[in-house]
Amino acid sequence: MLKLYYTPGTCALASHIALAETGADYTTERVDFKTNQQNSPEYLKINPKGRVPTLVTDRGVLTETPAMLAYIAQSFPQMKLAPVEDAFAFAQVQSINSYFCSTVHVAHAHKGRGYRWATDEASFADMKRMLPKSVGATFALVERDMLKGPWVMGEQYTICDPYLFTLSGWLEGDGVDLSTLPKVMAHRQRMAERPAVKKAMAEQG
Amino acid sequence: MLKLYYTPGTCALASHIALAETGADYTTERVDFKTNQQNSPEYLKINPKGRVPTLVTDRGVLTETPAMLAYIAQSFPQMKLAPVEDAFAFAQVQSINSYFCSTVHVAHAHKGRGYRWATDEASFADMKRMLPKSVGATFALVERDMLKGPWVMGEQYTICDPYLFTLSGWLEGDGVDLSTLPKVMAHRQRMAERPAVKKAMAEQG
Repeated sequence: MLKLYYTPGTCALASHIALAETGADYTTERVDFKTNQQNSPEYLKINPKGRVPTLVTDRGVLTETPAMLAYIAQSFPQMKLAPVEDAFAFAQVQSINSYFCSTVHVAHAHKGRGYRWATDEASFADMKRMLPKSVGATFALVERDMLKGPWVMGEQYTICDPYLFTLSGWLEGDGVDLSTLPKVMAHRQRMAERPAVKKAMAEQG
Repeated sequence: MLKLYYTPGTCALASHIALAETGADYTTERVDFKTNQQNSPEYLKINPKGRVPTLVTDRGVLTETPAMLAYIAQSFPQMKLAPVEDAFAFAQVQSINSYFCSTVHVAHAHKGRGYRWATDEASFADMKRMLPKSVGATFALVERDMLKGPWVMGEQYTICDPYLFTLSGWLEGDGVDLSTLPKVMAHRQRMAERPAVKKAMAEQG
């Protein structure tokens, strides 16, 4: 049985949706950032990084969203969430998810996690001011070059879709001009209608 | 025939070494950052992100190091560069590479790419001052929890190894205290002795 540790509003939603898409049984446990539970001794024993998501499997613990999403796709091949048997097509999916992780999510993280890379309040304020532009630039590339439609990879729904849905849910909070991203916004709406998305969001409360 | 676009001193070295490990034929082309060649119309046609590395395959172009490394491993299964048939073991490898990409490399990028996330010179200086600590923290986790030895995943050399070797090559320039990272430094030395590493580094000139 798979168990997902998550916090609402985080990228854990991507893996949560992917799990829900599989139709398999899984359990979830909420990690409370308000009480800094992610850095509690109990949680650090499970995930020494002190972050979410964490996926507990029968063989051990997995972290990092792109790896977890590929694992879910590969573990439930009948759902065709990624073309794992085709090295090139799979790499295209993984390339998108790697960009989401290291470029899109990282740009967003400068909103509230500036202390990872700087120390001065003025630097944090500078990063926050740039958010509409910095996050906006990462999404401009998604809009122009990555999102084929109706799903990220085209006709086939894949593990790129719950990840994009999760990240695009942060756009308003980051002050990005949504009118520049019609395809991304249509994708978000399309995703919101999927039963698995409704199930995961309801489970997160 | 595979073709790798690279720039010396960048994370393209990881894929370059992995290609050399396969023993397969490949070609390389240097992209000159000094003349901003990565943003030339010719290069942007190949990789609209304006970054390196880019891997050109018979089926199209791939970008993003974790995706390219997994592609190389999966395309040359006899080299056993990743346990691609075992979803959990493969996810462990991919989790490491995702961390390298989104956390270790991103910390380093604040040295000279602060303009991606801020605008003020004072912010850039703040980021640079923090580099020994910010990059150091990402490597402390590698040293403590990730690098099993002699290779990253233990006895089996994988696509995690050229990636770690590439990133650990930036430690001196980032001002990280090397004495805190004995396992990482021993890994770097072990890697430097591999014929594929010597070949890739010689090809980069």
